[in-house]
Amino acid sequence: MANSYAILKERYAKILNKYLQEKNEIGLYHAQQFSKKVLEDQISPEEMVSIHAETLTKLCPDLPAELTDSFDFLMEIMVAYGMAYREHQSLIDKQK
Amino acid sequence: MANSYAILKERYAKILNKYLQEKNEIGLYHAQQFSKKVLEDQISPEEMVSIHAETLTKLCPDLPAELTDSFDFLMEIMVAYGMAYREHQSLIDKQK
Repeated sequence: MANSYAILKERYAKILNKYLQEKNEIGLYHAQQFSKKVLEDQISPEEMVSIHAETLTKLCPDLPAELTDSFDFLMEIMVAYGMAYREHQSLIDKQK
Repeated sequence: MANSYAILKERYAKILNKYLQEKNEIGLYHAQQFSKKVLEDQISPEEMVSIHAETLTKLCPDLPAELTDSFDFLMEIMVAYGMAYREHQSLIDKQK
């Protein structure tokens, strides 16, 4: 379990890094493919932002503190999206 | 319509700016309150990331280009969350 999560984060680091260097449509295509995986693995929106923040900080260690702080703020907002999604999922399951 | 969106973005700029200066629980509370509003207004997850990116760039104009680029990448991933949410919403509506 923990291993597959680590692999997911490694994959994200690889594709984000490539995108930051090349900044092309292929990179965005890889993002789309990755997004299918995170939904399959039920990674919440706030967890996705956390993965992004952690990855970006490792790839670009000189980024200012405001950036990390701003991600904490964004994560707090994404929690609501995750909760709304899980509530809807639960409603659907009940109706089955 | 456009006016209320502009007001939403102004509100976000205000609370994000305050959080970046004070970095406390009150700021995160404001983020939570704001998240209720964006869900009410049916702002998609990718739109929320876009608002965040735009606001952060205005508040901190010296942030490097990799940051803006990285948000484009994150937005691409968030699109999938938004689609999944809308699909579920549509399923629930059909079952009514």
